Amino acid sequence: PNSLLSNVGTTIFTVMSALAVQHGSINLGQGFPDTDGPEDVLRTAAEALLDGRNQYPPMTGVPELRRAVAATNARFYGLEVDPDSEVVVTSGATEAITASLMALVNPGDEVVLIEPLYDTYLPVVRLLGAIPRLVRLTPPKWELPRAELAAAFGPKTKAILLNTPMNPTGKVFTGAELAFIAELLQKHDAYAICDEVYEHLTFDGWKHIPLMTLPGLRDRCLRIGSAGKTFSLTGWKVGYITAPKALAAVAAKAHQNLVFTTPPNLQRAVAVGLGKDDAYFAQLSADLAARRDRLSEGLARIGFTVLPVQGSYFVTADFRPLGFNGDDVAFCRHITEQAGVTAIPVTAFYEGAAPNHFARFAFCKRPEVLDEAVARLVRHF
Amino acid sequence: PNSLLSNVGTTIFTVMSALAVQHGSINLGQGFPDTDGPEDVLRTAAEALLDGRNQYPPMTGVPELRRAVAATNARFYGLEVDPDSEVVVTSGATEAITASLMALVNPGDEVVLIEPLYDTYLPVVRLLGAIPRLVRLTPPKWELPRAELAAAFGPKTKAILLNTPMNPTGKVFTGAELAFIAELLQKHDAYAICDEVYEHLTFDGWKHIPLMTLPGLRDRCLRIGSAGKTFSLTGWKVGYITAPKALAAVAAKAHQNLVFTTPPNLQRAVAVGLGKDDAYFAQLSADLAARRDRLSEGLARIGFTVLPVQGSYFVTADFRPLGFNGDDVAFCRHITEQAGVTAIPVTAFYEGAAPNHFARFAFCKRPEVLDEAVARLVRHF
Ligand SMILES: CSCCC(=O)C(=O)O
Ligand SMILES: CSCCC(=O)C(=O)O
Repeated sequence: PNSLLSNVGTTIFTVMSALAVQHGSINLGQGFPDTDGPEDVLRTAAEALLDGRNQYPPMTGVPELRRAVAATNARFYGLEVDPDSEVVVTSGATEAITASLMALVNPGDEVVLIEPLYDTYLPVVRLLGAIPRLVRLTPPKWELPRAELAAAFGPKTKAILLNTPMNPTGKVFTGAELAFIAELLQKHDAYAICDEVYEHLTFDGWKHIPLMTLPGLRDRCLRIGSAGKTFSLTGWKVGYITAPKALAAVAAKAHQNLVFTTPPNLQRAVAVGLGKDDAYFAQLSADLAARRDRLSEGLARIGFTVLPVQGSYFVTADFRPLGFNGDDVAFCRHITEQAGVTAIPVTAFYEGAAPNHFARFAFCKRPEVLDEAVARLVRHF
Repeated sequence: PNSLLSNVGTTIFTVMSALAVQHGSINLGQGFPDTDGPEDVLRTAAEALLDGRNQYPPMTGVPELRRAVAATNARFYGLEVDPDSEVVVTSGATEAITASLMALVNPGDEVVLIEPLYDTYLPVVRLLGAIPRLVRLTPPKWELPRAELAAAFGPKTKAILLNTPMNPTGKVFTGAELAFIAELLQKHDAYAICDEVYEHLTFDGWKHIPLMTLPGLRDRCLRIGSAGKTFSLTGWKVGYITAPKALAAVAAKAHQNLVFTTPPNLQRAVAVGLGKDDAYFAQLSADLAARRDRLSEGLARIGFTVLPVQGSYFVTADFRPLGFNGDDVAFCRHITEQAGVTAIPVTAFYEGAAPNHFARFAFCKRPEVLDEAVARLVRHF
C-alpha cells in the first residue's frame, strides 16, 4: 500500500463524529448544519430525478449550473467569467481542491500553506510529490505574519493554498492581507488555490474578498465554492472552480481522471439555489451570526476564552481557564464522554507541535441544540 | 500547470459526444443508456432528498448501501465480506479506480495494464509516479497473451489493473485466464484492481467471475462495481470498492482526500436497487443481449466485420470491408458528419501505434434508436 496514505490518519471529523454517536453526545465537531437547506432547492433536485436526465452530464458541469456560478461571480464580486470555459463543477470542494492542486503542481514544486489548515491539504500536496512550506497564524488574532510568509516564497514556489473565510479560525482575510499575498504571487510568478467555501458566511459587516478579484490576480487563481456550505446541504458534494481558461482546462482534466462528472439532478438544483435573491444570502449569514453569538456567549459564561469569529461555521475557544489538565485531544474526548458535547481539537489542523489548548465548536446548529450543548457544559464544569 | 495533465487530451467520450450534439447525430459513442433506470430506484432517491438526511454521510458510505454491496457479493459470487470494514462507497467507478491506484502504488512501482484500455488508467498511473507495463490483447479474439503477460511482471510489479467484462472489447475473461493471472499475482506478491463495472452485463451464458473469488486472491484484490452501469443511471456516479480490510482502509483514506463522501440520497436508492431480485439482473442482460444482436446484425448487413461480444455495452466493428480509406478517427468523424451516427475510434484505447480499423458502437440504446442508426449507415454506405 501507498506509504503516505497509510500514514494519514482517518480524518478527525469522522473520528469525532463516530465518537459523538457512540456517546450520544451533541456533535459540535464536524461542520454540518442540523437542518437541511432550502425547500425549493430540495424539490428541484427531487423533481430533476424524474425527468429522464440521469445519464452523464457534461464533464465540466451542466450549462445551467456553470451559468449560475458565473452569474454569482458577477453579482457578488463583479468578477466576469465565461461559463463555458472558466467554470468547472466538481463533486464537492474536497475534489475541487485536489483537482486544483493536481492541475497546478509538478513533483518538486513548493506549495505555501497556512496553519491551522484543513486536513486534506497536506496529504494531497505530498501525494502529488510537491513540497509544503508551512506558515503559521498566531492566536488569538490570527494575523498574517508577513515576513514569514514572504520568506516561505522562493524560486520553487508554484502556489499558495489560501482558505478565507478560514476554517477553523473564523478569520476573514482583509484587503490589505490579500494585497500582500497578491504581491508575493506576482513577484514569484505563482498561483493561488482559493478555498472559499464559507464565502457567504461572514458576520458583523465583514465581507469576503476573493483573491481573484485583486488587480493582476485574475489569471493566477483557482477560486473554489461549495453548494454544501452555501445551501446547508453538505452531503450533496457539489463544488465549483472558477479559473482562467488555461487553468480551468487543466483542472477539468484532473476532474476527468478523479470523478469525471457530478450528479446532474444535484447540479440543476444548485443552479436554482445560486439564483436566489440577495435576501437569502443575507438571511443565511444573519442566522449564523446569531448562532455564533448564542454559542460564544454560552461558552464565555462557562469560562472559556472565546476567540472572535468573522466568518465560517466555527468558533474556537481556549479551555485553559476551566482548569482542565491535558491537551486538546484529551479535552475533546473528555467533554464528549463526560459532558455529552463534541468538539474538534485544534491541533488536528497543524502538523507537529501546535497550540494545544483550543477546541473548535461548530455553531451551524439549531438554537435549541446550541442551548442544550451549553447547558450540558455548564452542568459539567 | 502540471505537465502530465496538460498533455492528456480531453477524454474521447466528451469529444465525440460534443461532436454528436454538433451534428445532430445518433450518439453510439459514449457508453450511457438512453433511458433511465428503475422507477423505484429513482423514486427512492427523490424521496430520500425530502426526509432530512442531506448532510455528510459516513465517509465510507451509508450503512444500508455497504450492507447491500456485501449482500450482492455473497449472492452473486459467494464472496463473504464485512460491510463495515471491507466496502468503500465512492463517487463512481472512476473515483474508485483512482482511489484504488492511490491506495496501492508508491512512486516507482510498476502497474500492469492490458490494452485496449479505458482512458483514465494510464494518466492516473503516471500521475502517481508509477510505471505502466502494457500488454496487448489481439483482435479479433482478444485472447490473453500469456507469455507476454508473464514477462510484464517483475520485481517492481505492484499491481495489475484488470477490466472484465472489458471495455471496449466486450471480452469476458475466462476462469483459465483469471487463474493464470492469479498465479502471477501470487508469484510476484502483487495486487489487482478489478474494474468490474459491467459485471451484470454478460450474454449467451457467459458469467462474470470476480478475480477476487479465485483461491488465494481474496486479500489481493480491490473489486470495483458501479451503480451507473447496473441501474442505467450513469450520471449518478455511485461506485463501490470491495476489498480486504487492510486495503479498504487505505482506499478509504484516498477517498477522504479525493471526494470524502457520496450523496446520501443516491446511496440509499442504490441500496434499494442492489436488493432487487434476480429477475431484474437477468432482464437487464437479456435486454442488452437483444440490443447487441440488433446492432451487430445491422452492422454486419452493411458490411462491417463485427467482433463477438460477451459482455459490456459495446460492440467493436472492423470497417475495412466498407472500403473506407482512412484511420479510425477519420472514420468516426466521417460517419458522425456524413451519416449521422457517432462511434468511438478504438485507437483511443491504446497508447501509440494500434489497430486503427475498428470503431466501437454502444448498443445500450432503445431498439428504435439502434434501428435508425443502422438505417442511416445503410443509406450512407
Ligand atoms: C468534510 S468533513 C469536515 C467538514 C468541515 O469542513 C469541517 O468540519 O471542518
Ligand atoms: C465516463 S464516460 C465514458 C463512459 C464509458 O465507460 C465509455 O463510453 O467507455
